[in-house]
Amino acid sequence: MSESEFSIIGQPLPSIDARVKVTGEAKYVEDLKMPGMLYGKTLRSPIAHGRILRVDTSKAKRIVGVKCVVTAKDSPRIKYGRIVADELILAEDKVRFVGDEVAAVAAVDKDTAEEAVAMIRVEYEELPAVFDPEEAMAPGAPLVHEAANNIAFKIQLSRGDVQKGLGSADIVVQERFEAPMVHPAYLEPVGCVAFYDAYGVLTVWLPFQKLFPVRSLLSRALNMPAGKIRIIQPMVGGAFGGKIDQKPPAVLSLLALKTQKPVQMVNTRDEEFIAGRGRVASKIDLTMGIKKDGTVVAKRTRVIADNGAYSSNAPATLNTMAIRPDNMYRFQNLETEAFLVYTNKLPSTAFRGFGNPQMTFALESMLDILAEKAGMDPVELRLKNVSKTGDVTAHGWKIRSGGLQECIERASREIGWKEKRGKRIPHRGLGIACMIHVSGGRTAGNFDGSSAFMKLNEDGNFDLLIGEGDIGQGARTVFAQIAAEVLHVGVHNINISVADTAMTPFCDGASASRITFVGGNAVKAAAEAVREKILDVAAEMLEASKEELLVKKGTVSVKKSEGRTASFVEIASFALNRKGGYPIMEKGTFDADDEKVHPQTRYGNYSGAYPFAAHIAEVEVDVETGKVNILNYVAAHDLGRVINPMAAEGQVFGGVAQGIGYALTEEMTFREGKITNPSFSDYKVMSAESMPPVKPIFVETIDPAGPFGAKGLGEPTLVPVPPAIANAIYDAVGVRMKTLPMTPEKILRGLEELKQKS
Amino acid sequence: MSESEFSIIGQPLPSIDARVKVTGEAKYVEDLKMPGMLYGKTLRSPIAHGRILRVDTSKAKRIVGVKCVVTAKDSPRIKYGRIVADELILAEDKVRFVGDEVAAVAAVDKDTAEEAVAMIRVEYEELPAVFDPEEAMAPGAPLVHEAANNIAFKIQLSRGDVQKGLGSADIVVQERFEAPMVHPAYLEPVGCVAFYDAYGVLTVWLPFQKLFPVRSLLSRALNMPAGKIRIIQPMVGGAFGGKIDQKPPAVLSLLALKTQKPVQMVNTRDEEFIAGRGRVASKIDLTMGIKKDGTVVAKRTRVIADNGAYSSNAPATLNTMAIRPDNMYRFQNLETEAFLVYTNKLPSTAFRGFGNPQMTFALESMLDILAEKAGMDPVELRLKNVSKTGDVTAHGWKIRSGGLQECIERASREIGWKEKRGKRIPHRGLGIACMIHVSGGRTAGNFDGSSAFMKLNEDGNFDLLIGEGDIGQGARTVFAQIAAEVLHVGVHNINISVADTAMTPFCDGASASRITFVGGNAVKAAAEAVREKILDVAAEMLEASKEELLVKKGTVSVKKSEGRTASFVEIASFALNRKGGYPIMEKGTFDADDEKVHPQTRYGNYSGAYPFAAHIAEVEVDVETGKVNILNYVAAHDLGRVINPMAAEGQVFGGVAQGIGYALTEEMTFREGKITNPSFSDYKVMSAESMPPVKPIFVETIDPAGPFGAKGLGEPTLVPVPPAIANAIYDAVGVRMKTLPMTPEKILRGLEELKQKS
Repeated sequence: MSESEFSIIGQPLPSIDARVKVTGEAKYVEDLKMPGMLYGKTLRSPIAHGRILRVDTSKAKRIVGVKCVVTAKDSPRIKYGRIVADELILAEDKVRFVGDEVAAVAAVDKDTAEEAVAMIRVEYEELPAVFDPEEAMAPGAPLVHEAANNIAFKIQLSRGDVQKGLGSADIVVQERFEAPMVHPAYLEPVGCVAFYDAYGVLTVWLPFQKLFPVRSLLSRALNMPAGKIRIIQPMVGGAFGGKIDQKPPAVLSLLALKTQKPVQMVNTRDEEFIAGRGRVASKIDLTMGIKKDGTVVAKRTRVIADNGAYSSNAPATLNTMAIRPDNMYRFQNLETEAFLVYTNKLPSTAFRGFGNPQMTFALESMLDILAEKAGMDPVELRLKNVSKTGDVTAHGWKIRSGGLQECIERASREIGWKEKRGKRIPHRGLGIACMIHVSGGRTAGNFDGSSAFMKLNEDGNFDLLIGEGDIGQGARTVFAQIAAEVLHVGVHNINISVADTAMTPFCDGASASRITFVGGNAVKAAAEAVREKILDVAAEMLEASKEELLVKKGTVSVKKSEGRTASFVEIASFALNRKGGYPIMEKGTFDADDEKVHPQTRYGNYSGAYPFAAHIAEVEVDVETGKVNILNYVAAHDLGRVINPMAAEGQVFGGVAQGIGYALTEEMTFREGKITNPSFSDYKVMSAESMPPVKPIFVETIDPAGPFGAKGLGEPTLVPVPPAIANAIYDAVGVRMKTLPMTPEKILRGLEELKQKS
Repeated sequence: MSESEFSIIGQPLPSIDARVKVTGEAKYVEDLKMPGMLYGKTLRSPIAHGRILRVDTSKAKRIVGVKCVVTAKDSPRIKYGRIVADELILAEDKVRFVGDEVAAVAAVDKDTAEEAVAMIRVEYEELPAVFDPEEAMAPGAPLVHEAANNIAFKIQLSRGDVQKGLGSADIVVQERFEAPMVHPAYLEPVGCVAFYDAYGVLTVWLPFQKLFPVRSLLSRALNMPAGKIRIIQPMVGGAFGGKIDQKPPAVLSLLALKTQKPVQMVNTRDEEFIAGRGRVASKIDLTMGIKKDGTVVAKRTRVIADNGAYSSNAPATLNTMAIRPDNMYRFQNLETEAFLVYTNKLPSTAFRGFGNPQMTFALESMLDILAEKAGMDPVELRLKNVSKTGDVTAHGWKIRSGGLQECIERASREIGWKEKRGKRIPHRGLGIACMIHVSGGRTAGNFDGSSAFMKLNEDGNFDLLIGEGDIGQGARTVFAQIAAEVLHVGVHNINISVADTAMTPFCDGASASRITFVGGNAVKAAAEAVREKILDVAAEMLEASKEELLVKKGTVSVKKSEGRTASFVEIASFALNRKGGYPIMEKGTFDADDEKVHPQTRYGNYSGAYPFAAHIAEVEVDVETGKVNILNYVAAHDLGRVINPMAAEGQVFGGVAQGIGYALTEEMTFREGKITNPSFSDYKVMSAESMPPVKPIFVETIDPAGPFGAKGLGEPTLVPVPPAIANAIYDAVGVRMKTLPMTPEKILRGLEELKQKS
């Protein structure tokens, strides 16, 4: 299919879910109401670390309207976890953070549930707690679990010879970069409804990202066969990695199993901050060496990451930190040691980019430091080192479509890099940062794929069953476009199912920016299989070979014989309404051509396709207040192919907004393990009006494996924002920010230090 | 698979839906409540025939809480119908029966909707009406539609040479048999909820039998693409043919499209009788000739059937009357002329057996009359003429498994036919009647098939997606058994979806006793496809050829090599968790090996398999009161293979109960077209306590095309009941009942006439 033949790929179509959202018709989990529904509430630990001596639920149980109170005793007490099995549904022997789940109540209304929770008496023996991961690793530190030195997960790897590389370097720099825990701050708090029915099936309406993986996790936690758990995804009000794995569905399932009534539980915003899960906080020590010409010859990395009290997706986040950003450059000599450390804080997990933003902040800041020392333009230094199409990186990643160079060049051109760096305006500066990311990976067992099922209706419209779901990013619209393109119909001709583990084929769900690439390929495969079947039938109807046929606008016609056409309506009927007839319906499966990385060395081609980006920020720093004003922002993304420019731009605007928050304002702050800013009045996210002008640039490298060439875009849009801004701040006022967020206070302190030095 | 190897086929398992029904957890359509839901109510014609001069909805619209009032003007005014397109959603120019839908209201609650309906003013010009089909055919009769002589549908056919046949006969008899309209009397009145969402999809929750055909019909009536209409089947509280095609979903859809809110409408029991649809009333003139040895040499049939005001499924019912019962015997010379005639009564439609019970009543009564004249035992006369395996009947039906002879023999033996006929007890008698039926047919276009989709979960449980649905007959349980048998797992390992046109593959739905045969074959095909895939993967895992493998209890093992086994859990994981992996999921499609009958001659092999039955009733007639007491009842059924004896017995008990009601008590009575007994206090159905002992006998002929040899059973259980009882009454007291129901009054009148004759 030549590019000019595209009818729908590349069209800026509004989200197919836009109308239901705008009309308020969209059903979020809190909108679900069922006859006889109960409400759940969780009792949380008020202390950071302590032994549970006694739980007395007797008073709570006596309250009229309370249907059930559960504690650890009511659960299977099987430790579970996405990667490290260190969680119980409800704390049994110990509590490990302020907010740890101890008991839960189901009652006829929310007030009664809250009252009952308040009536549960728990006696604790308080234990010494530890909140800083470095302190937690020190000998004699209190142990959160039984893990030695509180190390939950560890990665060590080496490529080439770092010692030799450093020896050959003209410039060597060592720096530490720190990033705090931040919250995904999705608009819709975590909530769910669960019902255990008389068929013995536990149905959970859950606006999470990865339905089948959540089902596996629940299956282990509840000690119930996965096939007897059904997860249905209502409309999702944002997720950003935070809704992969959290506690509420497990707690709620316990209540549902006990009461055999539908039970609903929705977090308050407070609970989101107290026990929802945030981005892994990190301290990264980087030692890097370059030649005078800018060639990077060595990178040594030490990461200490704050796991919080339980592991969740943090180990995968650590893995991302340890490996991902290295691959965007032709680095040869690498050494990384990364530790994920238990502390008595809330568990941390994935958040847009997994660990990529943390390490990209460190690496891309470091490159600017090195460039300055080498007297090089930061753009030139990056162009010197970029990975290109055909490269196999030091970690074994195969770059089949590498558009980073073009991203850098087009972003620089767009912002006027050379011109502006030439004639400086005081307190203004430009900063660039680059990024590599993935489009899925073999993280779910050893499958990096998806599947879909599609059927043709009698009226020529198609039903597409897919479980990848939509978390607000527009997956359904992209799927509709891909299917519509293959079948040469309109997007409105594709009806897309909700994601429902009982009905939709197996899939891994939204994470790792995989949906368009992996899910899109499954949809494409299903649509192509349906198209083949349509052509088979049409060939029979029109007495032509399949090669002679052309699919166009809901009809099949014989290319060289005008008038010999059959509509999809006629084809559907012809296929079905005859002896040996059948409805046209086909499945599609896709598994990416990547590899399971080596469990120890972590070497291997991680993902089916790698998106790249170069962001450039132009900032002005108010040297009186320390406030950073972003004047312009250019985000150039190699996303393989733009399926939907409107949706892609939306991703860029959203990702940059979250990145700016991470860069400048967001931080979950704690006192003795207790969060001190658990609300949107104290925890500052970017609002639409505070956004700078953002110019998205799309570099279409047409990935050979992507659906129509597309790669992932979701996470990449956030990843390079903090270092781009940090580098711009440095360029503007000479202050090197190495700790996020880059608040006015820190900048003023930096300006003060500068003054003292000069 | 040899018979002894069956693990689940043939097991008397309780319905998998039994628990949710017993616990009250089952959601019927009236249980569905949605936020902002409105309630619909229909305004019906109070007169049998009239011109609509004016409809004034202004007062109704002004009532607070009324959201919408619709009349014909608000509908597409496209005539539609299952077979004859003679219906509009709402009457436009004329009303044609007492109950005809004229307008409808959606309001915030039921009371307001009822109040609003009462405020709609309609001016009619009353027209002469006609209520009897024979009168309606007469010249000068009022025309209900524009059809000449009010004939809506007509069948004429001839096989062999009836004139010659009659000429060769030793005995010729001519009789008329009549049967009234009766109501299916399902426990759950017709109801639905409809919602037109911002995606442009109209979802209708509809407890009807045939979701995809209803969708087609709504598509035509509403002038909307079928693929934009979604039908979801909630729990169904009985249907019996009556819930194939009725007006409420179309009326409700209009309200839903107008209001864009969920709207619910549920018939009152009154409305069920006024405008729900009943069994086609019939007058059948039969002329038959036999040889002295009992060989039937000719049958001439004239049917006049009462269509009511609109056609619905009555034409198909007429077709069944005209053809079906002939095929159970080796009749050669047949002539049939059948008329379906419009009258100003409520439309009639299908009801358990379509037209088969009407004609079977005539034919099987006639055979007894002929047997008596020939001095033959009625059993002998039937055995003389029965169709057998290998026969092709006069109408072209291919009998591949013909167990009628065995049914007759086993039923006679069971009841003690010879012994009891030998030593008569006064006022007691035995009556036999036989039956042939179908297991589906190519009625939906030219497809007599079904399809299903099945997937293996990671825990070894399976999800089965099928749209055939369950109308209370236990289809889901039978499907689970078939799938479980193929896969050698338990019934509880098969999760069956609800029927949902958007999610489940295309199917034709419940009618013509097709579900077990056609749907079961689709399920079997899907399960076999999944099994093949499991074997493929297992062969790879176990390094064995597929032929060496044995599927047993959720594992695959190598037959001759103990210990080499893989569980379904391991197989699912092996298939998925590898490069190029895939989830195991397959579709299954089945289309029966029958033919589209010739549109004029109606010759052709109608169905994929033919079930047979012989029923024998033993009655005692109270000659003082005319009351018939059924002492014993034997129902021998050739159903091919018993999938589930408990479910099969349930079908027999239910069908015989309905048959006894049809035989003895049930009749919808009218005065000037208005029903006079629209309630269960006046319209008498059988209750459990009034049932005689019924002995089911199952003759397993193992049909070559049936799933594990099974054929249909649903309708057959009702079909022969009235003539078996009529023949028993005659045998008991010498009164030949030729008009249903055989009430005490009619029997007393018969006894009176007998006395006068003697």
